[in-house]
Amino acid sequence: MNKYCFLDDYSEGCHPRILAALGRTNLEQQTAYGNDDYSNQARALIREQLGKEGTPVYFLAGGTLTNLVIIASALRPHEAVIAAHSGHIALHETGAIEATGHKIITVPSADGKLTAAGIEAALASNALYPHMAKPRLVYVSNTTEAGTVYKKAELQVLSKTCRANNLLLMLDGARLGAALTAETNDLSLKEIAELVDVFWIGGTKSGALLGEAVVIPHEALAEDFEFHVKQRGALLAKGRVLGIQFVELFSAGLYFELAQLANAMARKLSNAILAAGHALAVPTESNQVFAILPNRKIEQLNERFDFYTWEKAGEHRSVVRLVTSWATDEHQVDAINRLF
Amino acid sequence: MNKYCFLDDYSEGCHPRILAALGRTNLEQQTAYGNDDYSNQARALIREQLGKEGTPVYFLAGGTLTNLVIIASALRPHEAVIAAHSGHIALHETGAIEATGHKIITVPSADGKLTAAGIEAALASNALYPHMAKPRLVYVSNTTEAGTVYKKAELQVLSKTCRANNLLLMLDGARLGAALTAETNDLSLKEIAELVDVFWIGGTKSGALLGEAVVIPHEALAEDFEFHVKQRGALLAKGRVLGIQFVELFSAGLYFELAQLANAMARKLSNAILAAGHALAVPTESNQVFAILPNRKIEQLNERFDFYTWEKAGEHRSVVRLVTSWATDEHQVDAINRLF
Amino acid sequence: MNKYCFLDDYSEGCHPRILAALGRTNLEQQTAYGNDDYSNQARALIREQLGKEGTPVYFLAGGTLTNLVIIASALRPHEAVIAAHSGHIALHETGAIEATGHKIITVPSADGKLTAAGIEAALASNALYPHMAKPRLVYVSNTTEAGTVYKKAELQVLSKTCRANNLLLMLDGARLGAALTAETNDLSLKEIAELVDVFWIGGTKSGALLGEAVVIPHEALAEDFEFHVKQRGALLAKGRVLGIQFVELFSAGLYFELAQLANAMARKLSNAILAAGHALAVPTESNQVFAILPNRKIEQLNERFDFYTWEKAGEHRSVVRLVTSWATDEHQVDAINRLF
Amino acid sequence: MNKYCFLDDYSEGCHPRILAALGRTNLEQQTAYGNDDYSNQARALIREQLGKEGTPVYFLAGGTLTNLVIIASALRPHEAVIAAHSGHIALHETGAIEATGHKIITVPSADGKLTAAGIEAALASNALYPHMAKPRLVYVSNTTEAGTVYKKAELQVLSKTCRANNLLLMLDGARLGAALTAETNDLSLKEIAELVDVFWIGGTKSGALLGEAVVIPHEALAEDFEFHVKQRGALLAKGRVLGIQFVELFSAGLYFELAQLANAMARKLSNAILAAGHALAVPTESNQVFAILPNRKIEQLNERFDFYTWEKAGEHRSVVRLVTSWATDEHQVDAINRLF
Repeated sequence: MNKYCFLDDYSEGCHPRILAALGRTNLEQQTAYGNDDYSNQARALIREQLGKEGTPVYFLAGGTLTNLVIIASALRPHEAVIAAHSGHIALHETGAIEATGHKIITVPSADGKLTAAGIEAALASNALYPHMAKPRLVYVSNTTEAGTVYKKAELQVLSKTCRANNLLLMLDGARLGAALTAETNDLSLKEIAELVDVFWIGGTKSGALLGEAVVIPHEALAEDFEFHVKQRGALLAKGRVLGIQFVELFSAGLYFELAQLANAMARKLSNAILAAGHALAVPTESNQVFAILPNRKIEQLNERFDFYTWEKAGEHRSVVRLVTSWATDEHQVDAINRLF
Repeated sequence: MNKYCFLDDYSEGCHPRILAALGRTNLEQQTAYGNDDYSNQARALIREQLGKEGTPVYFLAGGTLTNLVIIASALRPHEAVIAAHSGHIALHETGAIEATGHKIITVPSADGKLTAAGIEAALASNALYPHMAKPRLVYVSNTTEAGTVYKKAELQVLSKTCRANNLLLMLDGARLGAALTAETNDLSLKEIAELVDVFWIGGTKSGALLGEAVVIPHEALAEDFEFHVKQRGALLAKGRVLGIQFVELFSAGLYFELAQLANAMARKLSNAILAAGHALAVPTESNQVFAILPNRKIEQLNERFDFYTWEKAGEHRSVVRLVTSWATDEHQVDAINRLF
Repeated sequence: MNKYCFLDDYSEGCHPRILAALGRTNLEQQTAYGNDDYSNQARALIREQLGKEGTPVYFLAGGTLTNLVIIASALRPHEAVIAAHSGHIALHETGAIEATGHKIITVPSADGKLTAAGIEAALASNALYPHMAKPRLVYVSNTTEAGTVYKKAELQVLSKTCRANNLLLMLDGARLGAALTAETNDLSLKEIAELVDVFWIGGTKSGALLGEAVVIPHEALAEDFEFHVKQRGALLAKGRVLGIQFVELFSAGLYFELAQLANAMARKLSNAILAAGHALAVPTESNQVFAILPNRKIEQLNERFDFYTWEKAGEHRSVVRLVTSWATDEHQVDAINRLF
Repeated sequence: MNKYCFLDDYSEGCHPRILAALGRTNLEQQTAYGNDDYSNQARALIREQLGKEGTPVYFLAGGTLTNLVIIASALRPHEAVIAAHSGHIALHETGAIEATGHKIITVPSADGKLTAAGIEAALASNALYPHMAKPRLVYVSNTTEAGTVYKKAELQVLSKTCRANNLLLMLDGARLGAALTAETNDLSLKEIAELVDVFWIGGTKSGALLGEAVVIPHEALAEDFEFHVKQRGALLAKGRVLGIQFVELFSAGLYFELAQLANAMARKLSNAILAAGHALAVPTESNQVFAILPNRKIEQLNERFDFYTWEKAGEHRSVVRLVTSWATDEHQVDAINRLF
């Protein structure tokens, strides 16, 4: 890559503390398949955040794999998922959920969030027994695919709606760090664990080489979970690789610190874009910036920077997506900011 | 772990050269999803071994995931796999292949190998059209789960049998390094690529943190392969992590050097066991030693060493499995050898 | 049922000629699994309609089963279906297609039909390689779920669009008789067979007890088809039951005659509804009438007749669906007509 | 068919009383999808046999479909089935169970029966958590594929073994009539319902055109069952076709009477074979006769009769299978008997 890249939050390796820990522990013999000391330490560190001992925690490699293991283990064959149309499982996972046999019922959403009304509409239009798959699990992501962040009150309403309708609530936290450190956030990991049935904390997009931590507050869903992890190919022989990384991320607040760095860089981009007189397609809450720029401006920026042109916005403008990470170089942010 | 462990070949981290490379390249920005410079370099290095440009090569994380992606992408729903009863996909992958919809037809095997006669028997007893799943892919592993190594003549016969019967031949190379560096081996990577339709080169058990390289000499099987990699959750966002490791393994012969180290340690164990007057359940060809030991001896060894007691061998004896790796400590080998 | 029923076109048994044929042949011994004389005769009769010898024809029991066998046999795991949002597979088959692993990409449609523009939009929004399932098969139904009928020119455009985009075109003919005998129809079975890759001729809704005939003009799709029929549980031991029925339906034009009867009754209903000053939600082309009636009128009709109230149409009106069949009693049509 | 056929028990149509009932009720309007009066009557008649009100009963068309619906609805993805190697689901259903994602663990069996020892061996060799699919359902068939019949004591032991090991016990009753009317039988439908969790009563091989009745004594397994029936394509629109047939079969003992006829004809064949000095491969208990005949004799019989030559029995002899049904012509039995 010759140009500086704002394409995504996984263009660099991992935080140096993680590399150091991998090196420090490298030649120790450790039990395989997630039963190593480091995975156990990481579990303890995550449970500390939840303020609850014993909550099941598993480490998997990769978001799509994590989503499909959770959903396939939680549902019977006739049960369906409700998700926002923009939900990662609905849009960007190559039919991975359907490949495990389950229908995804999508709900339109302007900002990437699901609402109680959306869920209820999905229930109402999927009620013709037994000719329609039975809605059973609600999938949300935080941050959403639009970079927006759920407020506590919003998640409480979703949680209540799900419990009232015998629906499981699952939260995809590929970018949960970015959500929890957003200025607009008022949720804690502990509260999330109280409101949802199962969620995961993304490592890949938050400073790890790879790895996601699945947390299952609704403990019945954890029954036999490890079989599913193995059956779908998600059980790493050297589970230590995941454990060591999550130990580092959840020691001394590194996970949150890195997410804050990413968010701060996005805010800086976003402020410069607004200051230059352009509009945002979605207000910037986390580490993704969706800006509406003139096509000529986009071309010009593209000479020195890589980013996605997301969709057209009329004839002469387009929405672009700029993503920052814990590793984003502030000098490059300043450089692109001068060009808007 | 307080005891020294001969349980498996994935109890340690990775070869230090790999960690160094991860560190050296860590902050470079690289394209995601396996399109990074290092994955491309690693592809070139592997193709060099094959003596053939352009052979499709993909990097995935984990053997079960690799097996299921290959098989699910290669077969239509009514097609079945033929494997030795001891084959990893048949015995130790939690029904991962069946979970993608395919039956595995198993063939008895004393030494872990398939033979033409075994394949032909499986064909003959699965021929009642259309009431039986149609055999379409033959799965072998090298080394086998019994640590044995295919001779060139054996693989040639399998290849010929498969081609004569419209069967695809797949080779699981989780321990391909150990096979190719065995004293009994007379095969090269190049020859394997000529004889089979698809195979994979295991990194996890050969010095990498994780990662396996899928090689598809039968190029029609590579059509749309990346969709399958993504759909099954096997497409790492930071594909560089796999690419960098395979660059190191296939530079300066490291992959083969590490496998040789493992094999040498196993030979040392095996020689000591024989010298002490015990028998082997299977002659030691690679990095797995299957020894028949008195139960009292096993208890005594277990005080200082970890290993699997595999199965009973009469009333007073059992088969134990001792596995070595590139990281096995020769002092520990000497120590256990003194106890046999 | 005490009330006369316009709920569907499968509330009665079968045409008496079919019962007579079942009786006449009952004690003959016939080969099982669709290889009986009658299934062969029925194949010949259908091929006569196609004007082409040798086209593969199979008999299955039930529309959902037929749809899932066709689609699961035609697609590789990463391939998706494009269908109208109202398509039977998308809306009323309990996720049967997803249960075989395939995503359905739905396209909005006011009248139940797909258009080239709809297909192209679906292609454009599902093109992010390899992160989106690959569209590969287009599903249409004729008549559609709204009772509308494809014109020849419309199907030609779809066919051309599919061939230009490497898409298979499949036609669900659960009510194909009603389509081919509609006043607005200008298509023949022969032309359908030239324009689509695979289609089926519904028996259940056209005078049979059960049974659908799958026709595969794109012969490569028929390779190993019978394995799929068996694997999904669709291979009737007494295949004669299906063969005998299709022999009767395709002898002396019975299939078309029965569909015409159904359509005529629907036209009579529809004319009376319009004459009474009500509007139709969709113009009546076949044997389904979608009428917008005042809720009080619906209540009144419901005292003596059964039918579905489909959806609200403002505060005081609703859309009702009245379905006729070959067995609809004209006296009952007259009776309900007097009440509109 | 020019020769008289002993190939199977589904070469003829149905018992004339069934045809008469189909005719008598043909033009009545009935609710679709198994909610018709006749399906309800048939449920009541079957429950009478069980001596228990309220047991869930469903009607499906076809044995493979029935097996796959039951198993797929009962199991979570990581759970496996234990079956005799000769079990229909393991051998003659084209991988239908695997196609729903589940592994079948097979147990050798000489007479087609499973034993407690067989189940326990399967459990012992599939216990490596989480690397092996978890055994959860035991599949038996009665009569077995070898025509043998479970004694009450045998089924009690299986039932106890299953309950002690948290295994569901399922009985495939494709030929349950033949079992319950065998001279060696000491089981009733009521007792079967007490001993197993789910079973089905085959109609196809017992005088119906098609149709099997699923009975679910373990009522938790019936939760949402109808969704599964629909999702797998097994929900007939004209469910009356199944209901009417089971009303006839379970009125005035017809079901048992027809099975007795079939068994009597098999006994006659079997006695003649023994009297002629030949041996049986399995003692004849029901409507399948497995005889060991000289190959020359087989050729001679084949000139006038159709039957399967099952497998070789040495150089000059083979096992043949002769199957009788309710419709078997006693004159033809006499005719073949004269030739043995």
